Amino acid sequence: MSAVIPLRRAEPAFEPGGFANHATPAVRNCWYVAGRGSEISRDLMRRKLLGVDVALYRTLAGEPVAVRNRCPHRSFPLAKGKLDGDILVCGYHGMQFDSSGQCVNMPSMPTTPTHASVRTYPCAERGPLVWIWMGNPDLADPALIPDTHWLNDPAWASVTGDFHMKSDYVSMHENLLDQTHFPFLHPGTVGTPEYARSKLDVREEDDRVIIHRALRNSPPPGIYGVPAEIMHKRVDRYSDSQFASPAMHVAFARIVDPEPDHGRPSQYRFNITHLITPESDGAIHYWWFNSRDFKLHDTDADGFLKAASEQAYLEDVDALEAILEVVTSEDEPQFDLNFAPDKPGLLMRRILHRRAAEEAGHPA
Amino acid sequence: MSAVIPLRRAEPAFEPGGFANHATPAVRNCWYVAGRGSEISRDLMRRKLLGVDVALYRTLAGEPVAVRNRCPHRSFPLAKGKLDGDILVCGYHGMQFDSSGQCVNMPSMPTTPTHASVRTYPCAERGPLVWIWMGNPDLADPALIPDTHWLNDPAWASVTGDFHMKSDYVSMHENLLDQTHFPFLHPGTVGTPEYARSKLDVREEDDRVIIHRALRNSPPPGIYGVPAEIMHKRVDRYSDSQFASPAMHVAFARIVDPEPDHGRPSQYRFNITHLITPESDGAIHYWWFNSRDFKLHDTDADGFLKAASEQAYLEDVDALEAILEVVTSEDEPQFDLNFAPDKPGLLMRRILHRRAAEEAGHPA
Amino acid sequence: MSAVIPLRRAEPAFEPGGFANHATPAVRNCWYVAGRGSEISRDLMRRKLLGVDVALYRTLAGEPVAVRNRCPHRSFPLAKGKLDGDILVCGYHGMQFDSSGQCVNMPSMPTTPTHASVRTYPCAERGPLVWIWMGNPDLADPALIPDTHWLNDPAWASVTGDFHMKSDYVSMHENLLDQTHFPFLHPGTVGTPEYARSKLDVREEDDRVIIHRALRNSPPPGIYGVPAEIMHKRVDRYSDSQFASPAMHVAFARIVDPEPDHGRPSQYRFNITHLITPESDGAIHYWWFNSRDFKLHDTDADGFLKAASEQAYLEDVDALEAILEVVTSEDEPQFDLNFAPDKPGLLMRRILHRRAAEEAGHPA
Repeated sequence: MSAVIPLRRAEPAFEPGGFANHATPAVRNCWYVAGRGSEISRDLMRRKLLGVDVALYRTLAGEPVAVRNRCPHRSFPLAKGKLDGDILVCGYHGMQFDSSGQCVNMPSMPTTPTHASVRTYPCAERGPLVWIWMGNPDLADPALIPDTHWLNDPAWASVTGDFHMKSDYVSMHENLLDQTHFPFLHPGTVGTPEYARSKLDVREEDDRVIIHRALRNSPPPGIYGVPAEIMHKRVDRYSDSQFASPAMHVAFARIVDPEPDHGRPSQYRFNITHLITPESDGAIHYWWFNSRDFKLHDTDADGFLKAASEQAYLEDVDALEAILEVVTSEDEPQFDLNFAPDKPGLLMRRILHRRAAEEAGHPA
Repeated sequence: MSAVIPLRRAEPAFEPGGFANHATPAVRNCWYVAGRGSEISRDLMRRKLLGVDVALYRTLAGEPVAVRNRCPHRSFPLAKGKLDGDILVCGYHGMQFDSSGQCVNMPSMPTTPTHASVRTYPCAERGPLVWIWMGNPDLADPALIPDTHWLNDPAWASVTGDFHMKSDYVSMHENLLDQTHFPFLHPGTVGTPEYARSKLDVREEDDRVIIHRALRNSPPPGIYGVPAEIMHKRVDRYSDSQFASPAMHVAFARIVDPEPDHGRPSQYRFNITHLITPESDGAIHYWWFNSRDFKLHDTDADGFLKAASEQAYLEDVDALEAILEVVTSEDEPQFDLNFAPDKPGLLMRRILHRRAAEEAGHPA
Repeated sequence: MSAVIPLRRAEPAFEPGGFANHATPAVRNCWYVAGRGSEISRDLMRRKLLGVDVALYRTLAGEPVAVRNRCPHRSFPLAKGKLDGDILVCGYHGMQFDSSGQCVNMPSMPTTPTHASVRTYPCAERGPLVWIWMGNPDLADPALIPDTHWLNDPAWASVTGDFHMKSDYVSMHENLLDQTHFPFLHPGTVGTPEYARSKLDVREEDDRVIIHRALRNSPPPGIYGVPAEIMHKRVDRYSDSQFASPAMHVAFARIVDPEPDHGRPSQYRFNITHLITPESDGAIHYWWFNSRDFKLHDTDADGFLKAASEQAYLEDVDALEAILEVVTSEDEPQFDLNFAPDKPGLLMRRILHRRAAEEAGHPA
């Protein structure tokens, strides 16, 4: 009846062929990670995702449910209410919603207002992750959830961690598609000078950007070489790294030992999964998994890889937060320079820009 | 000579027949509580009221004075100055103002600039409260101050408290006009399920909204039943609750014991006074009084009623702050659903909207 | 290629003959103090100046260099990088810049992108201060740096201090040009009632505002009289105080003792230098020096003058922060009253307004 006036914000400017930046609205028609399955339980939980306050819980049968954290009656945050079986009960007037969001009781009314409902968001659980679709629900095809089967495959062992970052998903994806920063930002872990200069093949395919690199007869970086116990060798490195969706970057790395010692593998594989969900302007949720196909039950390898990954990603977090802070606190405009190795990032930024413009109904 | 540029804010949108919400400017032509009389003294005090910084003090004769906390010369906050008798002296250049706001001396000038003055706001003291009129001073008729004589009547005993809340006066008044939330938000104090479903009469009268409820042969709620020592009985409850002005909600509750024990009253009365003054966007001042006409000098009753009231109001504060936080932090628009029991609140919101629109010179 | 969208801000309103206030953009074509020379070293340092993030360092030869703290490639703050000789190396991709800002290496590129550079700002060191020019570099004539030779002259001894203030340079300059506030804001130090009422000559000259005061046969203020040991005397006071530039106010004070005791000077001189650099909206950097031409190596005099100055300036800081807080937190517009003694401040505000308007391309 009376609309709550939203906060005023600058209209995003879409130009044909433009590139997304920190100020571009997030693509909504996409599966994003809402959280780890282990976080979502019978205790109501609140998380902001793509600018929307969301309440998350599981039904008695264990299905994850995501509902707008705002009662349609008087905007009370539903995560401050309670669960009664599979019914979510608002803490203000006791309005009740089933897991589809349909109102099933309003205690102050003699009959149930069946026209009333709260928006729910399609959810799907895959391995350790719960995915959510914040866009047009008619488009929420579970087949679009990116493949992460290795996170749930006994042939792989994973370590994992997460960050809540004051950054944006564009900068984060650009960082992940860019390996030329390794020797400078991550000298202690993944960065080797040879790698930064190795030739890369880039291709764009179905709104994904895929980079292939091969580097032969080179010393391994510590993060791979130490757990594989091949730091004294020269190896061949292969990597396929891809912007898989606005929600995910994945890198498939392979280290080949051309002359393995007796009883040792000739190849070591690492799948690095990065999951990024915009929270609100200026903040993102970030989860990472470092998976390997060897030493599956080796707690030393776990410990080393978790520590080394965390150090490298913390360096990224620190850099990206510093960038956004400068970008948003200065009044001066800046036009970024681009170089040849920025091509993968620019392809990704053009995809994010085009999709955001389409969703906003702008020609792009 | 040169105007200080005010902060930019969105123009409020007034639609004919619309309903006030958290973003609607506060009605200014109204008496609001500026503070407790006990707070206002010979020590200069600062308080923000309806977006205006106000300095408060008492003259030597004890009269409360409210003056804009901003010297008309160079905007120095006058509450950081000092009192010299009934003269307020600015702490920056020593400019002096009498209690009407008229400049009576500017030390750096050979003659007094008699054209200079600072705005004062009409004040009036009633019982424990000092009221202020922040609107058009020509309309500041003391007869418009709402009746609160029971706060100063020896036939009544009161307990009191206050909150500084991150909320808005619309939500606060709506909460006070709405008793259907009692069983859900206040299960331990005022909420009984029977009460939430009891029939109410609503009428609008002279920009007030008055609700009458009667509930016969029902267990008393703890907050009334315990001090009256009638928790074991079934009683009749009568309540007249009203939106008395933008500044005040008052509830007159009566518990009738149809079969009083020997020497016991057949009726217990409670007047609950809620005083609400917008501070600035997103914050309000709130004072409450719980007054009774029995056990006038009973400190146990005082203690019980203060603790029970504070618990119930803290639940309201917590709920209303959570609502405003969601409403103002999300980008998504929301259209609230309304139900039949929301009628009193909607009548109140239409009054606040109409009066704000009139003050802004908008047709409404 | 794609511009980072700057924050939206209200367009400044320039009216012909108007007066600068807290909301007027800072004049940029001016030498400002970037910092003390002692702060700028081989360790990269970051400071926000006129809304721009600046990285400061010294070359191996000791020359101060100021460079925009934002890599032109991906906006990484260069102060988080490192120095390699006189080469500034970005911490993200290792892009290298010489002290003129020219890119001299981009590790990920086979050849150096010679079109790339980062903006540098002209710097000049004078005595204990490093000055910077944030405006049009073609106009950065070192001859425009205001004279502060006494800060580096063995005939003078100085004490110094600094503040980071939540204020604006207009209010600060107005405060410094105004001595009528001395008895009220600084009763314990510089304020004497006679002084506030003494006649002043004001003249405007080359965008400077110069005030001359003379006060004969008067008790000295403590801040001058105590170190000169003449508190028991009546003296003649002369002062030339000037708005020397948007970056500096300087006061030349002279106390003449008409009947000096045997072996005592007949005159004591004090040069008070105030250096003000806008940081961003709502904040300024402020450095002060209190210099004297007697008791050059007297640590007691140093201690007294530093403590007394700090007390007086802290009173100014406190007042100016209180003013800006009121001015920017209220919604109500205010038109400041002006009195005859405000003339110097108004002349200065007209200069700042005209110069800001010219720089913005507005007629003024």
